[in-house]
Amino acid sequence: MKCKRCGETAAVKLPSHHAGFCPECFERFFKKQVETAIRRHGMILPGEKVLVAVSGGKDSLALLRVLSDLGHDVAGLHVHLGIPDSSDPVCERTEAYCRENGFALHVLRMADVGLAIPEVKDAVRRPICSVCGKIKRHYFNRFAYENGYAALATGHNLDDEVARLFANVLRWDAAYLGGQGPMLPAEGRFVRKIKPLYRLTEFETAAYCFFKGIDHWKAACPYSGGASFTGHKRLFADLEDRSPGQKTAFYEAFLAKGKSHFAGVGEENGPVLTPCERCGYPSSSEVCGVCRIRALVERAGE
Amino acid sequence: MKCKRCGETAAVKLPSHHAGFCPECFERFFKKQVETAIRRHGMILPGEKVLVAVSGGKDSLALLRVLSDLGHDVAGLHVHLGIPDSSDPVCERTEAYCRENGFALHVLRMADVGLAIPEVKDAVRRPICSVCGKIKRHYFNRFAYENGYAALATGHNLDDEVARLFANVLRWDAAYLGGQGPMLPAEGRFVRKIKPLYRLTEFETAAYCFFKGIDHWKAACPYSGGASFTGHKRLFADLEDRSPGQKTAFYEAFLAKGKSHFAGVGEENGPVLTPCERCGYPSSSEVCGVCRIRALVERAGE
Repeated sequence: MKCKRCGETAAVKLPSHHAGFCPECFERFFKKQVETAIRRHGMILPGEKVLVAVSGGKDSLALLRVLSDLGHDVAGLHVHLGIPDSSDPVCERTEAYCRENGFALHVLRMADVGLAIPEVKDAVRRPICSVCGKIKRHYFNRFAYENGYAALATGHNLDDEVARLFANVLRWDAAYLGGQGPMLPAEGRFVRKIKPLYRLTEFETAAYCFFKGIDHWKAACPYSGGASFTGHKRLFADLEDRSPGQKTAFYEAFLAKGKSHFAGVGEENGPVLTPCERCGYPSSSEVCGVCRIRALVERAGE
Repeated sequence: MKCKRCGETAAVKLPSHHAGFCPECFERFFKKQVETAIRRHGMILPGEKVLVAVSGGKDSLALLRVLSDLGHDVAGLHVHLGIPDSSDPVCERTEAYCRENGFALHVLRMADVGLAIPEVKDAVRRPICSVCGKIKRHYFNRFAYENGYAALATGHNLDDEVARLFANVLRWDAAYLGGQGPMLPAEGRFVRKIKPLYRLTEFETAAYCFFKGIDHWKAACPYSGGASFTGHKRLFADLEDRSPGQKTAFYEAFLAKGKSHFAGVGEENGPVLTPCERCGYPSSSEVCGVCRIRALVERAGE
């Protein structure tokens, strides 16, 4: 197979784009997809500072790399979860990659704010993955807000977005359907949330990391049963096999023709948000979920 | 495994209902699902005559049987398509079943109205399955309307409905999403359309036919590549395997929480319907699709 653009030997085949690319032209393709995503959804305005949520996995490191290569003013934030035998090596590897490649990286240690995940896990009764996600979202947003970043970028790719959309469709959750998308505007103390990789598949970000020599962390979190939505992702992989391009078509059709039918449902039926009386961040109750988790951890430690 | 209801040996296992049933209790379960469908959606009012579209396959014969057993005033209509080596034996088998079981059955021969499907196939350039479907829908409705039936019942089962819903969701086709459902009210010369089997799976109607000794036609139409939406049905079979009950949950959640968001889209954006100047049935152009097909066949035969 030949590269669609330059005619050299192709190194990667993309049936959904009826194309194969050599490594160089693939990188060009990858960057163009990110540029298109940013332009179409007004994700980043000229001169804005962007904070990238960096777990150390392929998606977040690819995102840091491509946004930087496209000339955006980026810095990473890594949240150190305090999980034994996992958080230290992930953090070290991520710091090393950023140091070697000249990326600014901030690290927030959950142990320093009374929320080391092993202690949280012991103190709460709910599944740890959803609690950990809540904590991370809070601190990513808070760090961005308090340090003057206009947007928080996460590494969600097309497969993540399609699987989440399908999960929302299966339940016909109107509020979630109305709120899902690659760009969520800023509101009060919530900074703008953007997903610049939403037009690229998991395979494509993995190929990008491979070609760019990005040494990302590959092991799953020891507390999780693996990636989320694995079943839904396999289901859409089958669909994509049968008719290449279906994942993109489904998601783009949702943005163009589906989402608007659920507009405002979340705001109309959702809870009114007021500042948490402890941390000041928007909350649906007097004390926000994260401050309540911290109180549970403190009580368990007494 | 024991029957959930009577404790006898179960003959059929239904993971989505956390149940197994003996043949007798399964029939009871089957009837109750149909009763629930009819009651919830106001499908049939007391004393109304119902026309059942009878292809001769398992779903349509099961439907005729169960509606009759539930005490409804039903008659079948079989459309003889005129396809060599297929339509004659299907029609004969269907007539024999209805005669032996005391069901009124009407037969409409497409050859008699200038629309034998082999001639249609030669005269039109579009895929024959969609053209044939259009013709059948026209004549089922027309026969019901002209003979005083309040409703036309079709044998669509849960798998059919879920696959169609998924196809509409994949394209986010708002007009189709707004119009999909187990009951479409009457309007002008369109009689009410009902799908009393929509709460039962393909497996369940097959089991019902087996237990009731319904000798249905099993071969696919020689002109079609097999059942429609085969890929989507397999996909939802996988999903159902992983979490039993998902198909019902997806479809019922759509009816309860999704569909209303697309209400009226079809009417607002769809074409205005006026009577066809040849047959008088509602059409989006001066001459309706079926009359135009007939004209094409006539021209081809000249």
